[in-house]
Amino acid sequence: MTVFLVGAGPGDPGLFTLKGADLLGRSEVVVYDRLIGRELLALAPPAAELIDVGKGPGASTSQAEINELLITHGRSGRLVVRLKGGDPFVFGRGGEEAEALMRAGVDFEVVPGVTSAFAAPAAAGIPVTHRGLATSVSVITGHVGDGSAAGTVDWAMFARTGGTLVILMGMAHRAEIAAHLIAFGRDAATPVAVVHWGTTTRQQVIRSTLGDLATVDLPAPSVIVVGPVAAMELAKSDPTPRP
Amino acid sequence: MTVFLVGAGPGDPGLFTLKGADLLGRSEVVVYDRLIGRELLALAPPAAELIDVGKGPGASTSQAEINELLITHGRSGRLVVRLKGGDPFVFGRGGEEAEALMRAGVDFEVVPGVTSAFAAPAAAGIPVTHRGLATSVSVITGHVGDGSAAGTVDWAMFARTGGTLVILMGMAHRAEIAAHLIAFGRDAATPVAVVHWGTTTRQQVIRSTLGDLATVDLPAPSVIVVGPVAAMELAKSDPTPRP
Repeated sequence: MTVFLVGAGPGDPGLFTLKGADLLGRSEVVVYDRLIGRELLALAPPAAELIDVGKGPGASTSQAEINELLITHGRSGRLVVRLKGGDPFVFGRGGEEAEALMRAGVDFEVVPGVTSAFAAPAAAGIPVTHRGLATSVSVITGHVGDGSAAGTVDWAMFARTGGTLVILMGMAHRAEIAAHLIAFGRDAATPVAVVHWGTTTRQQVIRSTLGDLATVDLPAPSVIVVGPVAAMELAKSDPTPRP
Repeated sequence: MTVFLVGAGPGDPGLFTLKGADLLGRSEVVVYDRLIGRELLALAPPAAELIDVGKGPGASTSQAEINELLITHGRSGRLVVRLKGGDPFVFGRGGEEAEALMRAGVDFEVVPGVTSAFAAPAAAGIPVTHRGLATSVSVITGHVGDGSAAGTVDWAMFARTGGTLVILMGMAHRAEIAAHLIAFGRDAATPVAVVHWGTTTRQQVIRSTLGDLATVDLPAPSVIVVGPVAAMELAKSDPTPRP
């Protein structure tokens, strides 16, 4: 049997994939993160074992423990779905879980998902690339590893790319990040949007500038968009009521 | 009635979203691009009008004509699905279509999709970010606008970010892009992977280095991944046979 590392998408259950929904509907064990919505978990059969590994701030299960859990259940012969927010291979630590499974000789497969790095801005009406405004988009973590500083990212270079920056898990370090980007040449007047719980019914959007980012107060999970496109407001996607 | 700008995902029909599938199943008009698989179009009702706008090399319908088509059909009161490869707002020119619809006063909604920028590498076993190897991923177009040079991208900065680079539509300019990145300081030995038709049954992957990228010969559509993660091969996702 195989462990499926499945991207749950950005929050709106309608943005889950057909393949993910099919696997979840046949799952026997579901190992899920903190940010997975109840609507998605309802797709699992009533008999499925649901295991909350509560990853995130104040995590109760370490990454090593999660890896062990996946290996143990993978070896049990049951259909295991490891449900991860967004896409497993975009800041999802899915690569580490895949490596652990590979080392243990447990079959696995990755099922990509819609990443919140692009879908949260879209839900706020922001295209991360746009003709004449951005020929690149960089997705950066504002929270490296276990609480270490945002200083391991080369902000000087990102200040100068001119393209759109999407910063994940960056709200705790937002003042420092904005200061770095401005110090290295990005205009303080550069538009910024912060999208909290993007694509869900709890979505909130605050528009600001790089110079004022420190004053934007939204809790996690929030995505920070920096660049001319952050001033755009093309449409708001309506969250799907139920899957 | 609303025009839905829907991301078709990277190619594997199983990576289409639940919301996209629902809308397509109720569609009355479908305006689709060259790279959309027949399996997805089969989700539209038999009575739906399918309009191929063949965007891509040798395009037969200009962007202005596509915009007009969407406005006209949007005003007809029928349910219009504009089906675009990958995600509409990630190098999909969906922003331009949304702008045109907004100016024309036609309601629209964006439905994000799984971007091939991340799913094609994943299908080759490459996580675009990975602990200790990449704290950022930049998605860059190698083909700006209507055939203009890759020179409008600031390759000097991307050479120095140290993070993963994913270059879309870059095969025609691959020699120039590799030369720029090496000239600006990226090691010629940096691992590179080229993923052709990623996530589909036609998928091909060639592993190389930045110094040898010019010799990699795969046609469009191909995604170029540059960085240490490009040497990883964690898993291959199996394409879903049918939706």
